[in-house]
Amino acid sequence: MGERNVLVAGVDVGGTNIQVGLVSGDHEVHARAKALTPTAGPDAVFDTIAELVASLGGDPVAVGVGIPGVVHAGQVLTVPNLVGWGGDVDLVGGLTSRLPAPVTLGNDANVGLLGEWVAGAARGARDVLGLWMGTGIGGGLVLDGRPYEGARGSAGEIGHVLVQPDGALCGCGRRGCVEAYAGRRSMGSSVAAMVEAGWKTDLFDIQDEEEKTGLTSKVWARALAEDDELAQRMLASAVQHLGVAVGSVVNLLDVELVVVGGGMPEKLGQDLADRIEAAARPWMLRPSPDLRFVVSSLEDDAGVVGAAALARSAVIAG
Amino acid sequence: MGERNVLVAGVDVGGTNIQVGLVSGDHEVHARAKALTPTAGPDAVFDTIAELVASLGGDPVAVGVGIPGVVHAGQVLTVPNLVGWGGDVDLVGGLTSRLPAPVTLGNDANVGLLGEWVAGAARGARDVLGLWMGTGIGGGLVLDGRPYEGARGSAGEIGHVLVQPDGALCGCGRRGCVEAYAGRRSMGSSVAAMVEAGWKTDLFDIQDEEEKTGLTSKVWARALAEDDELAQRMLASAVQHLGVAVGSVVNLLDVELVVVGGGMPEKLGQDLADRIEAAARPWMLRPSPDLRFVVSSLEDDAGVVGAAALARSAVIAG
Repeated sequence: MGERNVLVAGVDVGGTNIQVGLVSGDHEVHARAKALTPTAGPDAVFDTIAELVASLGGDPVAVGVGIPGVVHAGQVLTVPNLVGWGGDVDLVGGLTSRLPAPVTLGNDANVGLLGEWVAGAARGARDVLGLWMGTGIGGGLVLDGRPYEGARGSAGEIGHVLVQPDGALCGCGRRGCVEAYAGRRSMGSSVAAMVEAGWKTDLFDIQDEEEKTGLTSKVWARALAEDDELAQRMLASAVQHLGVAVGSVVNLLDVELVVVGGGMPEKLGQDLADRIEAAARPWMLRPSPDLRFVVSSLEDDAGVVGAAALARSAVIAG
Repeated sequence: MGERNVLVAGVDVGGTNIQVGLVSGDHEVHARAKALTPTAGPDAVFDTIAELVASLGGDPVAVGVGIPGVVHAGQVLTVPNLVGWGGDVDLVGGLTSRLPAPVTLGNDANVGLLGEWVAGAARGARDVLGLWMGTGIGGGLVLDGRPYEGARGSAGEIGHVLVQPDGALCGCGRRGCVEAYAGRRSMGSSVAAMVEAGWKTDLFDIQDEEEKTGLTSKVWARALAEDDELAQRMLASAVQHLGVAVGSVVNLLDVELVVVGGGMPEKLGQDLADRIEAAARPWMLRPSPDLRFVVSSLEDDAGVVGAAALARSAVIAG
């Protein structure tokens, strides 16, 4: 049996959902399963991951897990965005004891870009910025033909590149991070403030019609498609601030490709990547003539494919 | 004869001076020479470099040249900061025909950091930001244990990281780049504007006493040492804006070391690195616990040592 036929499980742990897939060596997803992310703490999350992976069958030889936290040298340093998680969770131990194969951990935005790099919109590129737009703004980097994680696994935090010192408050407690303008959570609280100030919007009606408990990417996409003025103003502001951050990063890193992924780009498509490019270009000093902006092509599968690729490289090649 | 005893010439082409040195494999500088940078165009610069290298003797087996421009795959793409240079100078050809050994080119800030990395303050570090403070603000990167030059040789331009959209005009034509606040040229024009507005300063008297034609790093250092209030305010503003830019870069790249080099740090020492660190820390999300800020240790030799190391790796190891 060749390595390409060996199956690996990829797990994408998000704040809302956990997705798993069984992935072959050519990065094809052969089976999928999905569940809501438990809010009762780490053990419930471990149990759900184990059940989902078991439900896939297929005897995976390794399991890769992308989590919304900082991972360095296989150790999870912090998991800031999961409900009910303290500081010192033994994620590797908790998963290893429940899963039938070796476990490799990675950061969710990093593995998302890894998925696009091995099998999607960033395939073959040497220097790539991944810009992940969801509840917050995450990112990943491929530099000089290799995934780059930084000294302690924290690299890629383009969401906390400053675009306006003393600007809007960010969830991290600082002011003026691009996430404070372009993350979905920040955009939602700005909408609420604007509505209190007398603005009209259909965003909340659409949220109810779609039976969502918040302003999801789907809700935003529908409001934008229906020409909701407040939604359009909020997106324009997000894009403008993303342009400043991405322009700065291109000046610093001279990448050849910016891949835009995550919930919002999945719904809004290449048009969103084009708008971010148009906002970023004026800030660039000397971009590569080959520089391109593309939307992710694996969409929802990027995290699963990337987590599987991470585990495959650690366990099989490693 | 071992490789360590093979001599290589390093050439550091600055806007003001050209420095050359004969460097052994242990990165020691065995002979030095220096001349003003000719302003009569490329041929005069090539001639001066050739004369300086010849004056060293020692039969170098390779020549490395750091220039203030963009170099990619051995080709010079642009040389924005030398007087009398057009767009299409054949720098490799012009130098190769005049020099007795193979020529390797690099960007000046990149080779400065390379010097510090092989033999100075950044030795052994895996992920490093070099912040080069002179007439402008330049930079270099070592990422994952390798010098990083980007897709087309433009990486490291921390001077054009945005710190204040719609802020001060920068020499690049954009607004709000950190160079517009912290580059010596910008600081000088701000001083001139402040003096016109009625501020007092000893900077220009010191310039005359030191027989300089502009506000050099030495002039700034003396004014600061003599408690000149305007000089101190200008430096405080430069440091504050550098803190924003460096904080953003640390969030993006998770480096373990920031090396501060160039004319101003050579004069102001570790205190300047400490002040930039203090200004940057509040903007950092999750810096490595090992993160340190240090001033360059090779001082004036960094460019020569780095250019020689570049040539050595290209010609001997390559």
